[in-house]
Amino acid sequence: MSRYLDMIDGPAHVKKLTLPQLHQLAEEIRYELITKLSKNGGHLGPNLGVVELTMALHYVFTTPKDKFVWDVSHQIYVHKILTGRKDRFHTIRTTDGLNGFALRTESEHDCYGAGHAGTALSAALGMCAARDQRGTDEQIISIFGDAALTNGISFEGLNNISTTTKKFIGILNDNEWSIAKNVGAIASYLNKLITNPRYNRLQKDFERWLRRMPKGDLAIKLGHKAEEAFKGAVNDITLQQNPASTESDGRGGFGSSLIFEEMGLRYLGPIDGHDLPLLINCLEFAKTCDHPVVLHVLTKKGKGYDVAIQQPEKFHGTGPYDVQTGASPAAKPGVAPAWQDVFGQTMVKLCQNNNNIVGITAAMPSGTGLKFLEKAMPQKYYDVGIAEEHAVLFAAGMATMGFHPVCAIYSTFLQRSYDIIIHDVALQDLPVIFCMDRAGLSPQDGPTHHGLFDISYLRCVPNIIAMAPKDEDELVDMMFTATHQNHPTFIRYPRGAGEGVPIKDQPRMLEIGKAEVIQNFFNTGGRKVALFGLGNMMSVARKAAMELTAEGFDVAIVNPRFTKPIDAGTTEFYGRAADLVVTLEDHVLPGGYGSSVLELFSEKQIQTPVVRIGWPDKFIEHASSVEYLREKHGLTVPSTVAQVKAHFATAVEVSATKFPVVA
Amino acid sequence: MSRYLDMIDGPAHVKKLTLPQLHQLAEEIRYELITKLSKNGGHLGPNLGVVELTMALHYVFTTPKDKFVWDVSHQIYVHKILTGRKDRFHTIRTTDGLNGFALRTESEHDCYGAGHAGTALSAALGMCAARDQRGTDEQIISIFGDAALTNGISFEGLNNISTTTKKFIGILNDNEWSIAKNVGAIASYLNKLITNPRYNRLQKDFERWLRRMPKGDLAIKLGHKAEEAFKGAVNDITLQQNPASTESDGRGGFGSSLIFEEMGLRYLGPIDGHDLPLLINCLEFAKTCDHPVVLHVLTKKGKGYDVAIQQPEKFHGTGPYDVQTGASPAAKPGVAPAWQDVFGQTMVKLCQNNNNIVGITAAMPSGTGLKFLEKAMPQKYYDVGIAEEHAVLFAAGMATMGFHPVCAIYSTFLQRSYDIIIHDVALQDLPVIFCMDRAGLSPQDGPTHHGLFDISYLRCVPNIIAMAPKDEDELVDMMFTATHQNHPTFIRYPRGAGEGVPIKDQPRMLEIGKAEVIQNFFNTGGRKVALFGLGNMMSVARKAAMELTAEGFDVAIVNPRFTKPIDAGTTEFYGRAADLVVTLEDHVLPGGYGSSVLELFSEKQIQTPVVRIGWPDKFIEHASSVEYLREKHGLTVPSTVAQVKAHFATAVEVSATKFPVVA
Repeated sequence: MSRYLDMIDGPAHVKKLTLPQLHQLAEEIRYELITKLSKNGGHLGPNLGVVELTMALHYVFTTPKDKFVWDVSHQIYVHKILTGRKDRFHTIRTTDGLNGFALRTESEHDCYGAGHAGTALSAALGMCAARDQRGTDEQIISIFGDAALTNGISFEGLNNISTTTKKFIGILNDNEWSIAKNVGAIASYLNKLITNPRYNRLQKDFERWLRRMPKGDLAIKLGHKAEEAFKGAVNDITLQQNPASTESDGRGGFGSSLIFEEMGLRYLGPIDGHDLPLLINCLEFAKTCDHPVVLHVLTKKGKGYDVAIQQPEKFHGTGPYDVQTGASPAAKPGVAPAWQDVFGQTMVKLCQNNNNIVGITAAMPSGTGLKFLEKAMPQKYYDVGIAEEHAVLFAAGMATMGFHPVCAIYSTFLQRSYDIIIHDVALQDLPVIFCMDRAGLSPQDGPTHHGLFDISYLRCVPNIIAMAPKDEDELVDMMFTATHQNHPTFIRYPRGAGEGVPIKDQPRMLEIGKAEVIQNFFNTGGRKVALFGLGNMMSVARKAAMELTAEGFDVAIVNPRFTKPIDAGTTEFYGRAADLVVTLEDHVLPGGYGSSVLELFSEKQIQTPVVRIGWPDKFIEHASSVEYLREKHGLTVPSTVAQVKAHFATAVEVSATKFPVVA
Repeated sequence: MSRYLDMIDGPAHVKKLTLPQLHQLAEEIRYELITKLSKNGGHLGPNLGVVELTMALHYVFTTPKDKFVWDVSHQIYVHKILTGRKDRFHTIRTTDGLNGFALRTESEHDCYGAGHAGTALSAALGMCAARDQRGTDEQIISIFGDAALTNGISFEGLNNISTTTKKFIGILNDNEWSIAKNVGAIASYLNKLITNPRYNRLQKDFERWLRRMPKGDLAIKLGHKAEEAFKGAVNDITLQQNPASTESDGRGGFGSSLIFEEMGLRYLGPIDGHDLPLLINCLEFAKTCDHPVVLHVLTKKGKGYDVAIQQPEKFHGTGPYDVQTGASPAAKPGVAPAWQDVFGQTMVKLCQNNNNIVGITAAMPSGTGLKFLEKAMPQKYYDVGIAEEHAVLFAAGMATMGFHPVCAIYSTFLQRSYDIIIHDVALQDLPVIFCMDRAGLSPQDGPTHHGLFDISYLRCVPNIIAMAPKDEDELVDMMFTATHQNHPTFIRYPRGAGEGVPIKDQPRMLEIGKAEVIQNFFNTGGRKVALFGLGNMMSVARKAAMELTAEGFDVAIVNPRFTKPIDAGTTEFYGRAADLVVTLEDHVLPGGYGSSVLELFSEKQIQTPVVRIGWPDKFIEHASSVEYLREKHGLTVPSTVAQVKAHFATAVEVSATKFPVVA
């Protein structure tokens, strides 16, 4: 049987379908999501939850003229399928395929990109202001999750809406459950909205609007009479919640939410986010409002796929899985433990031995590995929601009282806390420990999630200690060392499996600012090349060293360990001894680790040339694998060897004329 | 007559005073503030507003055991006076004097420093968590203004309080007016709390507490009976607002604020923040609560000093003034216009000529100079409150619709928007324009306000264009140029008076990434020194050039204009031609402009030594003047000349053995 989905070349086609056809299309989209994502994985759960919502949006509004701003935008798959990208959908999150998030350069229907949470209200409000300046009539719709409301930026946006524009449509996509369980007062507030009849009084003007909807219009077109739509709305509430009073107090929207109302928004909801005609009616109503409005939509993550409903955390963002069972492929034997697991298990041990250590996550217990601490010692574990600034301030406050709080935040998300790092932690020289997972690439997610800037943005900040372990055993040493410092410490390590080295029973205290010499020069008489392989680039350095040695070079290998302070003595020693220094880092080149070596050499008047290997000065695209991107951008063993050889092929010898040491 | 103030060596002494003595002390403190600040200026208005509140806090609580966390902490002067620093109070904000903000290293009574807004709730909550972990009984009090509530971090803090601790005291110091008029929905909400009887129902349990207060206790000690305290509380409401119903609905605190209640805090207020016994009673009550509580206190900026009340914006943070009249000393004739004024006036001209330009400030219309636009073209002006992240997102949204929004944000506050700059603006390559005032030193404010990191933290971000004008005429050219780019642009310029150059009638379009050669080598035969003087360091470069020329050096001067992309051609040319390159920047050295020159030289295999002049890798203290700090840290003409001479005194000549150009 042919599918409606195959006929949907763009959103205009959605508008032509009848209600039964729309229902059929929803099923087809779900099947598409479940089957296509099974191969490479992706954000299955959230997208199964917004099938009807996305269809209703395209039914009522017209992109690209109207603008949908998706918060985080991991829930954008259905939108991509409906906006001309269904044939490429199977390529999502793979090399040269569709991006897993909204991407302006991918489609005119993606008006605003994202990847981090909390930006959709403010960005959409900017669009409203632009529209109002021009006097045009685009509809701007911001779709944000309940978890985004734990982020302060959402609040800054809410605070500004009613004083900035009269025409703003917000959709609160409430699945009562973000990646981790939603935390804080807002979560319980939303729960009250859903369950407490006091919050669920039907708003008279919405009621009137529903009742007077002309027959020949929308309702008929949907094969759904106005009265039925109205009854749907009422039933929706009464079925889901305690029987609600229908009297109105004249404030608020459909239901009544005082927080949204006090913020100057008209509140509509909560409504069933899987009831298509109801969604369409509410969106049509919102379209007519001459006042900012927020529609509270209740959706279910994983809707239509039982295994995803049963394992919501796994299927929020999943790897490949078996469509029938939902099971992941068995792990290959011999795969090293993930960095995040080593971090999480080490946190438990550190907290068991030191009462002054706690772990803090910004809604990422699983991704960071802090779930191990949550399970073992819940009293030492804090999940503050998607609130990285609060997380670091909270840690700073604890640090003033003698604690060594550990903030487990991905490198890319720590950008959110930058001012707090400078103004609160570093300026006050507080012993907060930052464990930055995903420092390096997050290949399938792409540029919004790569952590390629932290060395540079931290290197200019006084008082801090910044490290990168070459393997997971050194990660444990660094965590242990950090808990004994009276300064802010930062440890960066990548996504995925570690190096597979054994982890010592007892961690070792590292000397701050001291590099590790892995291999000294052999004085073979060959050209002397010193390789400084930072963090996970050590393995590239080691392999390149073997190849270079085979080619007659005399190679030393140094594990820098610290990007701040760098080991001036060791770096200077090899700088003077070598004919060429090569720095390797899983980080952009401008201002990075290699740059700090150049600064040292300049200060010490060392003129040995330096080849810096790292990511170029551009946003790195998404791809299926780290390997592909390293190959493309030259962070490989062959590239390293080739650059060393090219250097000596073109450079004039200067080692005999180097500056002497200046006392 | 001897003053009570002279007897206050520490907060313990405050507790010993009777109510009439406390009133007398308040007057003495006001006199101290008004007279002592008249000489060097400071945050007079806010401190006059919190005299009674600060005294009440010290009456009820005991620092340093109990902790006061002041948001922004510019309102901390009274606290400093009462905690052993009254004799040094006249030195505040001057070289080697007291810092103008809370500073942990200054006093054990300053438990947490600040300078930026919105951090006090989260930091205090961290302290509560530390206390709860230890099981001790410190009281933690967070004092924050109404303007701080426009900042998202405050909201992140609020969201976490009730789920983190049972014991938290927040003081909302509401003066209905921050630096600029408070904006957004929260401001009107707070206004409703104050004026609408619906929000002002007396809470029964507080009423009971007040009524049953034992005679021999606090009230007597204050010479103030419990019944009177209670009447005061009631009168306070009824006098200030519409007559309020005293019935309670069982929710909330003293009055009733639904937002705070929904966030899980008990709300008390609003109360008169100048009524000492009432403040003391309420704080005593808050102390007993086993539930997080927020006390809403209404204070008046400038209270007790008419000229400050009449000019609240001026006296928020003022320079020197005449105590009798409040007048500032007449400006010295011939002083150049401030950078911020040139910026503001240019914004008006740009907006008049281009409909796609708007100006956005985060609650700093006066400090940034955007007030000129507010006055001339209010429809092109947006003040979003202390919400730098929202400000930049709002701009990003507008930029997607073809606008060139200008964000006027101090360098130090732009740190708040770092992730938005990367994730929203640069990644999407949107033409948002950032005008960063206070790039460089804010000497009297000190390390929380210096803008010394922006070159480094922006240099690693792809797609951006970053500039620094040598004078205010070039600032206008850069602003004009920025409005014609399709990329994010950043312009950094310092606080205070410009160079005093005339400004052209028509701005000039600058070539992106092109430096300006101010003076070429003369080929005198002397040692060739190329000075790259960035931004306001150009004047140092010029003067150093004159001195060096007088000493026989052959000096070239380059105005780099761009810190990203730097002018590779010009920099390479002078790198190869010179015996020594000197970079000068009003910025920290790690990762700064000089570092970008080192990176270029390394890539081009140029071995000419580079002396980098800039701020050292530490937080720079506050002081009376820029000159003092430049002298101390070596950013002066004599230091530049000395470093050049020292270089040639120790270095071996290498110019003859430089690498050739590699094609």
